[in-house]
Formats: sequence, structure tokens, C-alpha cells
Amino acid sequence: MNSPARAVTMDKLTSLCKRRGFVYPSSEIYGGIASCWDYGPLGIELKRNITEAWWRDNITARDDMVGLDSSILMHPKVWEASGHIEGFTDPLVDCKKCKQRFRADQLEGDVCPACGGELTESRQFNLMFRTFMGPVEDSASTVYLRPETAQGIFVNFQNALNSSRMKIPFGVGQIGKSFRNEITPGNFLFRTREFEQMELEFFVKPGEDEKWHQYWKQERFDWYLRYGINRERLRLREHGSDELAHYAKGCADIEYEFPFGWSELEGIANRADFDLGQHKKVSGKDLSYFDEENRERFIPYVIEPSAGVGRPLLAFLVDAYDEDVVDGDERVVLRLDRRLAPVKVAIFPLLRKAGQPEKAHAVRDLLKHHFAVTYDQAGAIGRRYRRQDEIGTPYCITVDHQTMDDDTITLRDRDSMEQLRLPIDRLVEEIRTRLAAPTAAAGG
Amino acid sequence: MNSPARAVTMDKLTSLCKRRGFVYPSSEIYGGIASCWDYGPLGIELKRNITEAWWRDNITARDDMVGLDSSILMHPKVWEASGHIEGFTDPLVDCKKCKQRFRADQLEGDVCPACGGELTESRQFNLMFRTFMGPVEDSASTVYLRPETAQGIFVNFQNALNSSRMKIPFGVGQIGKSFRNEITPGNFLFRTREFEQMELEFFVKPGEDEKWHQYWKQERFDWYLRYGINRERLRLREHGSDELAHYAKGCADIEYEFPFGWSELEGIANRADFDLGQHKKVSGKDLSYFDEENRERFIPYVIEPSAGVGRPLLAFLVDAYDEDVVDGDERVVLRLDRRLAPVKVAIFPLLRKAGQPEKAHAVRDLLKHHFAVTYDQAGAIGRRYRRQDEIGTPYCITVDHQTMDDDTITLRDRDSMEQLRLPIDRLVEEIRTRLAAPTAAAGG
Repeated sequence: MNSPARAVTMDKLTSLCKRRGFVYPSSEIYGGIASCWDYGPLGIELKRNITEAWWRDNITARDDMVGLDSSILMHPKVWEASGHIEGFTDPLVDCKKCKQRFRADQLEGDVCPACGGELTESRQFNLMFRTFMGPVEDSASTVYLRPETAQGIFVNFQNALNSSRMKIPFGVGQIGKSFRNEITPGNFLFRTREFEQMELEFFVKPGEDEKWHQYWKQERFDWYLRYGINRERLRLREHGSDELAHYAKGCADIEYEFPFGWSELEGIANRADFDLGQHKKVSGKDLSYFDEENRERFIPYVIEPSAGVGRPLLAFLVDAYDEDVVDGDERVVLRLDRRLAPVKVAIFPLLRKAGQPEKAHAVRDLLKHHFAVTYDQAGAIGRRYRRQDEIGTPYCITVDHQTMDDDTITLRDRDSMEQLRLPIDRLVEEIRTRLAAPTAAAGG
Repeated sequence: MNSPARAVTMDKLTSLCKRRGFVYPSSEIYGGIASCWDYGPLGIELKRNITEAWWRDNITARDDMVGLDSSILMHPKVWEASGHIEGFTDPLVDCKKCKQRFRADQLEGDVCPACGGELTESRQFNLMFRTFMGPVEDSASTVYLRPETAQGIFVNFQNALNSSRMKIPFGVGQIGKSFRNEITPGNFLFRTREFEQMELEFFVKPGEDEKWHQYWKQERFDWYLRYGINRERLRLREHGSDELAHYAKGCADIEYEFPFGWSELEGIANRADFDLGQHKKVSGKDLSYFDEENRERFIPYVIEPSAGVGRPLLAFLVDAYDEDVVDGDERVVLRLDRRLAPVKVAIFPLLRKAGQPEKAHAVRDLLKHHFAVTYDQAGAIGRRYRRQDEIGTPYCITVDHQTMDDDTITLRDRDSMEQLRLPIDRLVEEIRTRLAAPTAAAGG
């Protein structure tokens, strides 16, 4: 069961991301800010393609799902009911000598790892960021940056139910930012204090929860495969009873083998009626569901497939990264699924004269309302191909001498490197068809 | 110059938004949280359509623009350089008796408007939300929730320039959440403490800034018209020199006439070299641009079209709201531009028998991979039309007796209420063509 060898390392990937505009360290001109990252021009397009695919596949193309978008700042009672104020904590100790703080559960000895000083007893540190709303900073004005988007769905359960007129089983999904004041963030986009989530809460009748939990584990696992993740680097790991969160009846993680080891992309939990039950209790509002058909009332159980955005994005990049040799030259190529690639088509004039740049601009203008395109006339044609391979552009179009005679161009495929001669007036249709076909599994 | 009368009021609109799932009060089961709102199933689709249209028109379909997505938490030096720590303030006074706080510039008298007590001297209150990053809460760990997305673009100017290889004039745009601890939020989605922005920073050569400022004022004004905003309720208002922000060389607001009066949708400012100049000074990094053609180096000037998301969304809803009489029945109809409408096609079986529901489901399955669709079989057909009119669905399809014989359906248009008989196999093409055509200006 050894995984295949591959060229990618975190250093190579981070460097490519910075250089080509996928991901920059946030506030870099001020020395950066711990574990915050900004998406550059290519990164935001890749991220948009991933979140679009998730939204389309899980919300709009399904009859049993609706979307939602709740605010980051919520009533503090929400976090009391959810258990986050009480229990969303890490144990910390202080060094009495150098005043540094450490996670007690990650220390090997009894003395400060920085200066050898004596440590305090450990105390619980809440991972929610807190701030103050309104002009007075006191406990009454304390609000939290949400540590998960899920609670925004639970507190809106009745609203979503009433206005959408859905019947159980049905789900509510949302994409949005969450914040956790992690003591030890790291591994590039993998663990960050500010992060984006794609969460689904699927409400079912108690007793049908196990069946739906199985369904969603399979469905979400297959989703990653469908967008090109290598089957050998993806696994579903069931939680042992000792790692289950207090609210979960069962949970499985979809894990990917990153260069730093197998790590979680998404968790699929059976939260039973914990959340709706808690909000019912604390708010005093009726959050039950009435099943017309069987004339019975119950608190729905919920199955929660909860993914980050940064982690899948990192996995898609790592998995797509490949190096091979073309005409004696080594090239880096991102074998991203065509639907996820930030740029679909690059257009080059072979020469910077003879009317070719003008013709290439006309081709770009023809395609730009249909696909994400780019234009490049700088340097030798081989070098221009390398630039596009490195960012995963599936198709390159070259305008050459012959184009000026017969209105045909060459279309070059990123993976097969096959070059086809095609008339310009068939391009939109041809590219559309090719983009819709699944990309072959990545190499490397 | 009196504006035409209209049926919409904020009360009617807020109630429709809640009932049909456009917008709910946030944390409503806990009594809500001041001025925070959640987008329901229809609201998030409308919001997605607006932000998609903005992104496509301003970023991907243009050759001189790239996107970016910077983090909400940034290095505190960013806000020192931008002037927000020093100057992003409102003057506040406290009542010595009842301890309430008020904005000094909004008080009419010298005594507390709540209890008549004596007021303190006014002091400056910073509108940035602050929180603490890492395990220690002190001044060294203080960070701010960004009050605008713009600074995330300025600090990434060199990164975006280097990795995109753009030449001036070019722009960088982003969509994201910002936070301002407003003392007096209000008017539904209009002024909220947590809000989303769509900002463009367009970098130009000094001396060409006036020309580009004019260009963007026109371009952005026309954008609202293109998506159906009534020309008579939209105006461009130039700032007087007394209202200009300290960083601005000139500014104009695009204003919409809401039921509560003319108010800003978007500001288009000429920020000159204020921001890049400040970040250059405070960070010590070179943020200049070298113009290869003229062999000169300069700090670019920047034109900033800065819009919210909630305000345009509210304007599109207000502007689309109409009431008319159909067959003797009053109906509410949202005359949203077809591209913005959250649901494009509703599918009804005329009867809940004779195979019609199954046939209607088959039509839905045919259409759902192409358009946002919904299915409804509850109640009389007229009532089903009313439900769709109220949320702005441009097309309703009815499966009836004849469908079972000849595979044709009726397609009903929201605005003309014309009903067409069409074969099912021509539906995708027919609807696609109709959706691409501009919607006639709203009535009311």
C-alpha cells in the first residue's frame, strides 16, 4: 500500500504559488502576519472554481438542498447553546520566567521549552476570537467571530424550512469565513486562523440517520475523485469512539496524503439532534418538524459534511503538481481538472509582427466572453507553453503564418501535448466540448 | 424632476424578504443581533448572481483587470499607514447620569436625550472592531477586522504586478467582508456593521487620473442601468470640496432613491498616490512602477470604484418591486433583471394526477443542469404563478393534458404574461435565448 513517488514538495509548491500569483503571505510588506494568506489573481480564480463546483453539485443541481449565507457576527447565546463558550478550548501553560505561553498537551517536559523556567498550572484557553459591538467595551457587548458556519444554519432551521417549503430529508448549505485562534497554525494553507468553510447540514428523520451518514460519506468521497484527486492519496477514516466530539454519534474524515502526511480535508459527522435540541432548550423556540404524512413531530437528526476551502484547494494543487521532460526540457505542469483550472485558454501570436498580434487579439476577444483567457506574446513559443503548463492552462492557441491565409489556428493540449489545426469559427464549440470531458488522473 | 410614484415601502419589502427567504434577521431565535442579517435560500442566490455579474463584467471579461482575495485579519501596521488607527473615528459623548453613549455630531442639545443628564466632553471613538490574535490579550496581539477591502489590494500591489505581468493602466478587484462598528446602523441592509464590498483599484499614470476617473464614473453608472435600475432613480453626485476625504483628490457617489431617500450605492474616488505612498513610507518597500516604454518610474495614481453588496442588492429589490392587477387579482411581482433572478424557471403539473407530476419532474431534471429551477404542485395554478411572480421568476412552465399527448408545454412570461406552447426538446435553447435578452425597465 505504498503511495507512488511524486515530485511535489511544500517548498516547491509555496514558491510556485507566490511567483505565479496563486497565494501570497498576507501583509507581506510588513513582514506578514502569522498564518494569514492572500489569494492572488490565479488563486482567487481557482478558489472560485472550487466553490462554484461545490455549490452547483451540492446545492443548485439537487432538489433536496437550499443555500444560506449567515453573518459572521452572531448573538453570543448561539455559542452558549452550541457549547463553544464552555468547551471550545485548548489547555495552556505560562512560563513564570520568560512569560511565553504553550499548549500543555504538546509539551514534552515540565519546564519551559524556551528558557527552562517553571510553568504555571494549565488553564483552558477559548479558541474563539472575541470583539466588542457598539461603543462600550464590556462583557455585555462581547461578540465572537464564528468558529464554524454550521450554527448559522441551525439557528435558521425554521426560517429556511418555512420559506423554502422543503420536506425532510433536505439540507441547507453555505460557504463562508470562520475564525479560530489556533495556538499552532501552520503547513501553508492547511491550518490557518482565518479560513473558509463549505458546510452542509442535511436534516433527516431519526432512525434514518445511519443510512444518510453512509450516503454522504460516499457522495463526498466521490466528489474529490470526480475533480481529479488521485484515488491512492485519498482515504476515508472512521473516528474511534475516543476521538468523537461530544455532539457526534459518529464521524468519518476524508483524508488526503499531503507531503506532510495524511490529513483531514473534510469531516462527515452524524450530529444527531444535538444542535437543534440545544438551541430549542436555550432559546425556548420550537425547532421541531412535523411530518404530515405520518402525522408525527420530531427534532430532526443532522448529517454534516463539513469541508474547508483552503484544504481542498491545497490538495488539488499538490495532487496536480507534476514534472516531466518535453523536447529535452524539464517542465512543471499542473494537471488540474479542466473545470478547476484558473485559465482555460492562452492565446499566442507566433511572431510579434505580420498582423499576428492583432489576429491573436481578435481570437481572444472572440473567446473571452465564454472562457477565462489570457494573452501572451513575450519570449519564445516554448517558453510561453511552459508558463501556461505551470499554472495548469489546459489549452494554448497559436496564431501563425497559416492563420493569416486560412483562418485556422493550432490548439495544443496541456496533457497530451497533441496539436490540432482548427478553424477559428469552430473554436468556441470545440473548447466547450473538451472542457466538459473529465481530465485523466494526474501523473506524478 | 419628481420621481414616479411606486408601491414599494421598506415594510413591505422587509416582510417579503423574511417570508420568502431572501433575508432573515440574524440570530432571530435569540431576539436578533443589531443590524446583522442572514441571506436565506433566495437571497443568497440573488447575491451570488449580483457578485457574479460584477466579477464577470469588471474582472474576467476585461483584459486590464485581475482579481484578488486578501484576508480580513491584516498586520496592524496596514491601518497605521492607511490612517485608520488615527482617523477612522466618530465623536462620542457619555451621559454622566444614565451612562448611555451618543454620537456628538448627531445630538441637538447639550443634555442627554435619554434622561436629560449632563454629558461628558466628546472623545474620538475608533470604528474598527479589534480583537486579539494568539493566546495573550495585550496591545502587542491586537489586530483589527478590516474596515475596507481596498488596503488588501494596495499592500499586494507589487505581488499582483509581478505575478500578473500587467502594465499600467490596470486594475485589481476583490469581493469580501468588511466590518465597521457603526454607532447608528439601520435601514435594513443599507447600513450594517458587517458588510460585503466589491472594490476595484485601477492604477494609472499620474496626469491620466482625471480621464480615468471620468471613465469609471460613467462605466459604473451604466452598470446599474444595464441590470435594470430605473434611470430616474439613479444619479451621480459629485462631492463638494468640504466632504472630500483627506486621501481623495475627487469623489462622486452613485446614489439611488430608496424609500428612505437618496443614498449612496457606490463611491468612485480619485485617491491619487495617497495609499501606495503611505505604504511605501511606513513599510520602507518600493511600491513604484517602472514604465518601460517611457523609461520613467512613478507611484501610480489610483481610481477606486467601491460598492457594497448589500446596498445594490437592496436597490435591485426595491427597484424591482411592483404591484399590479391580473384577472382581477392583485399581485406582487419582482421585475428583477432575468440574469439576477434567483430562480429562472418554475415547473408545475396542472393536476396532481394523470402522470403530470412525473412528467413535470422529468422536465425539471432536463432543465436543472442548465438553470436554477423549482418545482411546485401545491394549490391552484393561479396561486402558483403568484408565488413565482413575488420572487421574480421570469418563466413558468406548465405540464397539462396536452403535454401527455404531444410533448409540448406552456411557457409563461413574468412580465408580458404571454403564454407560448413549446415542444419540450426546444426548451433549453428557447429559455437560454430569452434569459440573455435584456429585461425591460421595471414598472412602478
